[in-house]
Amino acid sequence: MYKVGVDIGGMSIKIGLVDDNGQILSIKKIKTEKNASKVLLEVVDAIKSILNEKKISIGDVLGIGIGCPGSVDRENGKIDILPNLDWENVEIVDIIREKLPARVEISNDANVAALGEALYGVAKNYNTSIMFTLGTGVGGGIVIDRKLYEGGFSRGAELGHVTLIYDGEQCTCGRKGCIERYVSATALINQTKRAMALDRQSKMWNLVGGDIDRVDGRTAFDSAKEGDESAKKVVDQYVAYLSESIMNMLNIFRPDAFILGGGISGQGDDLVNPVKEYLDKFDYGYKNAPRPEILVASLGNDAGIIGAAALLDD
Amino acid sequence: MYKVGVDIGGMSIKIGLVDDNGQILSIKKIKTEKNASKVLLEVVDAIKSILNEKKISIGDVLGIGIGCPGSVDRENGKIDILPNLDWENVEIVDIIREKLPARVEISNDANVAALGEALYGVAKNYNTSIMFTLGTGVGGGIVIDRKLYEGGFSRGAELGHVTLIYDGEQCTCGRKGCIERYVSATALINQTKRAMALDRQSKMWNLVGGDIDRVDGRTAFDSAKEGDESAKKVVDQYVAYLSESIMNMLNIFRPDAFILGGGISGQGDDLVNPVKEYLDKFDYGYKNAPRPEILVASLGNDAGIIGAAALLDD
Repeated sequence: MYKVGVDIGGMSIKIGLVDDNGQILSIKKIKTEKNASKVLLEVVDAIKSILNEKKISIGDVLGIGIGCPGSVDRENGKIDILPNLDWENVEIVDIIREKLPARVEISNDANVAALGEALYGVAKNYNTSIMFTLGTGVGGGIVIDRKLYEGGFSRGAELGHVTLIYDGEQCTCGRKGCIERYVSATALINQTKRAMALDRQSKMWNLVGGDIDRVDGRTAFDSAKEGDESAKKVVDQYVAYLSESIMNMLNIFRPDAFILGGGISGQGDDLVNPVKEYLDKFDYGYKNAPRPEILVASLGNDAGIIGAAALLDD
Repeated sequence: MYKVGVDIGGMSIKIGLVDDNGQILSIKKIKTEKNASKVLLEVVDAIKSILNEKKISIGDVLGIGIGCPGSVDRENGKIDILPNLDWENVEIVDIIREKLPARVEISNDANVAALGEALYGVAKNYNTSIMFTLGTGVGGGIVIDRKLYEGGFSRGAELGHVTLIYDGEQCTCGRKGCIERYVSATALINQTKRAMALDRQSKMWNLVGGDIDRVDGRTAFDSAKEGDESAKKVVDQYVAYLSESIMNMLNIFRPDAFILGGGISGQGDDLVNPVKEYLDKFDYGYKNAPRPEILVASLGNDAGIIGAAALLDD
């Protein structure tokens, strides 16, 4: 049967028709805005128009899955808070079901990405996988025995807000030293800028044409490949932060696979290989502790739609 | 039906007959030693003699549950390694089943304690609970929807070996900065000794009769109650370490209850109240994040037997 996946982002909402193999057959994109009810009507219209175009009736659709940033109450089908858009207490499942007679499921965007990768992406041959999305923030997703684990009240799996450094950098969540402060793209950019400020001779300055505001998540990785010592130090430190954060999750969950997604994961082997090397040095508990595969997310920009649709399998 | 719980410790093994309500009807205790096969035969004899005394046949027993420190492979019924006794690769379930025709289950001692508290102890009215045992080390146990969650390969839930401080104090596990280095009884004793070394006027010196080797997990708590400033600082810092460690688990699992066990939990309200106050200052994610009860383990010395027997319910 077909599924609909809806990927709500801060700027746009993508709506996709997905088949049984997790392939996207059709996509529509609409701009998001602060008036939730109005936007959700547009989402419903987009779904109807995709179904029309594909000559599919709503009865042929297993349901509608929705992924959304912020805090989501899956059980009650509600967005508690979506800070970027000032959405609060949006009864999203009820609003959509009023217009479309279908099963509707909603979850947090990081959970949805992890589920998509686990069922249809890079981890589809593994039963249990944990995912970090290394983007503006750090999202976490946990899939145990091919089912999404969202924690109690579907409010857990906030892996980016587990601390890495007690009393460390102030986080937006109110705590200090969260993983997100050290391994997000935002954090890597700050780490890169600090290293550049200390080394005016670094090749990183050439890469950004002397303009520190052009530093992005690739700057340190690219210069490290050219042999720049300051860039290498930034990358080594980032890899250590990330590997320690991963190891914390391994000691809790012992997953079959650990997935890296989000912008920074675009480094591929340049990120994964040093992480593996770091992890290989440790051996908690006994000599042959089970080791997970370290994988890079494969669904890319489609992860949000495919993962949201995968909520209907969950 | 009856169950047998076996609590393997570094010094002794306790064998108990447990009823349906988790009450211990009879206990025997034997000394442990390095020859595993020999000790396990003694365990079998002790079980038989308890059953004889109580006029119960093995057919009236649901099974035998075993809790054991070290690394345990529940699926294969095997002790991978029990460092204190140099036991390695002990096929404990097979060895016992050869002599007693019963279902035999084994798990890690911290898991077993958490399960006992969740099913028969302080958390029996909560579906999902996480436990730290604050003893020589820090054990962790996770009970989700009244089932033990041991992680993949039954080798996870090593909550004491999640880091609190990146690049912090060296841990016996090979990592640095593990929770165990900051919130175990051992750690609290070291923190207390360091504070005493810096303050020769501290009342803590009186409490131990001037002998720093007599410092234990109560020294700082007791002197803090008498108003000693150095002791208060030790307690405040310990509470902060512990609360941050707890919060990390809350952001992952959102349990209904968090249980503190082990020696330090004997402080009761003097520990739990400041932890609650600390946690109340934080509010991850949105205004009314679900908050767990913070509880003190209630099964005490019986936790090992009752929890091991509870493996038969799991």
